[in-house]
Amino acid sequence: MSASGSSTSSPGLVTLDWGTSSQRAWLLDDGGRPVDVRRADRGLLSITRDLDGADPAELASAYEQVFWTTCGDWLEEHPGLPTLACGMVGSRQGWREAGYRTVPASLELSAEDLTTVEHRAGVAHLVPGLRVPTVTGGAPGDVMRGEETQVVGILDALRDRERSRTLVLPGTHTKWVSVRDRKVMTFTTSTSGELYGLVLQHGILGRTARPGVPDEEAFRRGVSAGSPPATRGALVELFGARVLVLEGRLEPSSVPDYVSGVLIADEVAHLLPTVADPGHVVVCGAGDLCRRYAAVLSAVGVDADVVTEDATVRGLWKIAVSTGLASAGREGRTT
Amino acid sequence: MSASGSSTSSPGLVTLDWGTSSQRAWLLDDGGRPVDVRRADRGLLSITRDLDGADPAELASAYEQVFWTTCGDWLEEHPGLPTLACGMVGSRQGWREAGYRTVPASLELSAEDLTTVEHRAGVAHLVPGLRVPTVTGGAPGDVMRGEETQVVGILDALRDRERSRTLVLPGTHTKWVSVRDRKVMTFTTSTSGELYGLVLQHGILGRTARPGVPDEEAFRRGVSAGSPPATRGALVELFGARVLVLEGRLEPSSVPDYVSGVLIADEVAHLLPTVADPGHVVVCGAGDLCRRYAAVLSAVGVDADVVTEDATVRGLWKIAVSTGLASAGREGRTT
Repeated sequence: MSASGSSTSSPGLVTLDWGTSSQRAWLLDDGGRPVDVRRADRGLLSITRDLDGADPAELASAYEQVFWTTCGDWLEEHPGLPTLACGMVGSRQGWREAGYRTVPASLELSAEDLTTVEHRAGVAHLVPGLRVPTVTGGAPGDVMRGEETQVVGILDALRDRERSRTLVLPGTHTKWVSVRDRKVMTFTTSTSGELYGLVLQHGILGRTARPGVPDEEAFRRGVSAGSPPATRGALVELFGARVLVLEGRLEPSSVPDYVSGVLIADEVAHLLPTVADPGHVVVCGAGDLCRRYAAVLSAVGVDADVVTEDATVRGLWKIAVSTGLASAGREGRTT
Repeated sequence: MSASGSSTSSPGLVTLDWGTSSQRAWLLDDGGRPVDVRRADRGLLSITRDLDGADPAELASAYEQVFWTTCGDWLEEHPGLPTLACGMVGSRQGWREAGYRTVPASLELSAEDLTTVEHRAGVAHLVPGLRVPTVTGGAPGDVMRGEETQVVGILDALRDRERSRTLVLPGTHTKWVSVRDRKVMTFTTSTSGELYGLVLQHGILGRTARPGVPDEEAFRRGVSAGSPPATRGALVELFGARVLVLEGRLEPSSVPDYVSGVLIADEVAHLLPTVADPGHVVVCGAGDLCRRYAAVLSAVGVDADVVTEDATVRGLWKIAVSTGLASAGREGRTT
């Protein structure tokens, strides 16, 4: 019996995108197509919260239990199915530390790149993160964990894969990733998404902000305030939202859009000049955020492509194939 | 009977610095010297928290009650004593809205600048804030409330008062104030202090930060990361603290110093070029914060003066004298 109900495919892989606050799991068929999908608030924080100071074995046991809660029935029904997971599950506070590959790093992973961890019915394979090493006496380096799998998926989805590109992945920690010859050459993280949440949820601006409909004009005003040459920097321009509300020039419900504009404009102003190929920018993520980034980039003459597909599951499948966990023979979803 | 126990002075003024989260009150003698001082967590937030949507009369009654709890015995013992308050108590959510004076604004206030509000035994006078109006189609303006009184006190404490100066007042919202001919010409607010608190109390960096002894070297490294020409902006450089901790190059207990360095350096890099007189900067506030600002300014060749005196009570007395609430005849504390 096939879980998909289809007579032409059979289950081929259990995959997980297991992050800080949530966990997503897919049962893929032997062509990489999702047969079943689950989403749960079973991220690292929910697991480590009560295990501060626990020994590694105790922590691993807690992860194994959570893994089994999500995926156990798939593995009971299909014994021996390989499992591949990416994200913070491979961090120091995760199930097992999966290390980092150092840039420049190929997007074609091999079997020895993966870290394995045992569970009650076999092993799970963990995808390593990527790192830019710190230069002693120079700039701090960078790290990512989970986004490297998203990058593999995005590259697979794009035509002209050999082209040198800058991928922008908006999120809590937005990643600007430089890709060339199917390698990640370098990348930079911005905390703009996290600061947006902090300012509005816990900050003084959040006290007067009110929920409301999206206000494109407020976003554009924020972008203008956060953009060179007139900007006085995000730290100053954020306060502008408060002044404009006091003056009756900005609705309290439009404060989030203004703040979003200031932060994205500040980030683009700093990072666009640092990328190797500003002429080929691809923004990948949730639709609304992608549109905001594309608008800010357009204002400085960059015509970015937008990919709103959730590319992580596609990346997990590609990694499973390149590492030999799955076979490419029946692949049906890639171009 | 004099509350001071001194036979040569008598009470002359009740003053309050009444802000968002706390309230300080002083009973001053007729020379402006503190006779008694009180500090309480009776800021605006504690009063308005349970009065969302209350009518103005109800709100005013709540403020009057809190005022009386703090200062009532002083006024019962010395009936008719004038009262002067500055800070957010004069804001829209305060006891009564005290308005703003528009820059350029003289530091010699007159009686008609003050707003009065009745209490059970007389009236209290409220100091207006200052505003830089927004330019339509241009930069957002700015506001302050409470710091204008601090500026009056600082100018009174300095020699050579006629000199053109930039006053930097570090705090939750740091103010850069341009003063010339005993007038506030303009000013700019940075949210660096608020962001510092948000990032460490509620942010992802706060999860790994640990309390520790001050780490001057970590502060300097943060300053270096936040300073031109190498900086990629505060939004990016904040993430550097996380990378350095992961690499074992920064102790978790040193993260707050690193973050402080990044934010102050970013603020100075943006605002120092905008001030009219970068050669005469005075930093005024808490000792540790002043030292941090002075260090960052020194690194870019600005030898700032530091004033760690709490200048607000001095400013309140000066305003009481210039507005006729108190008489300068017996002044003993100014130069």
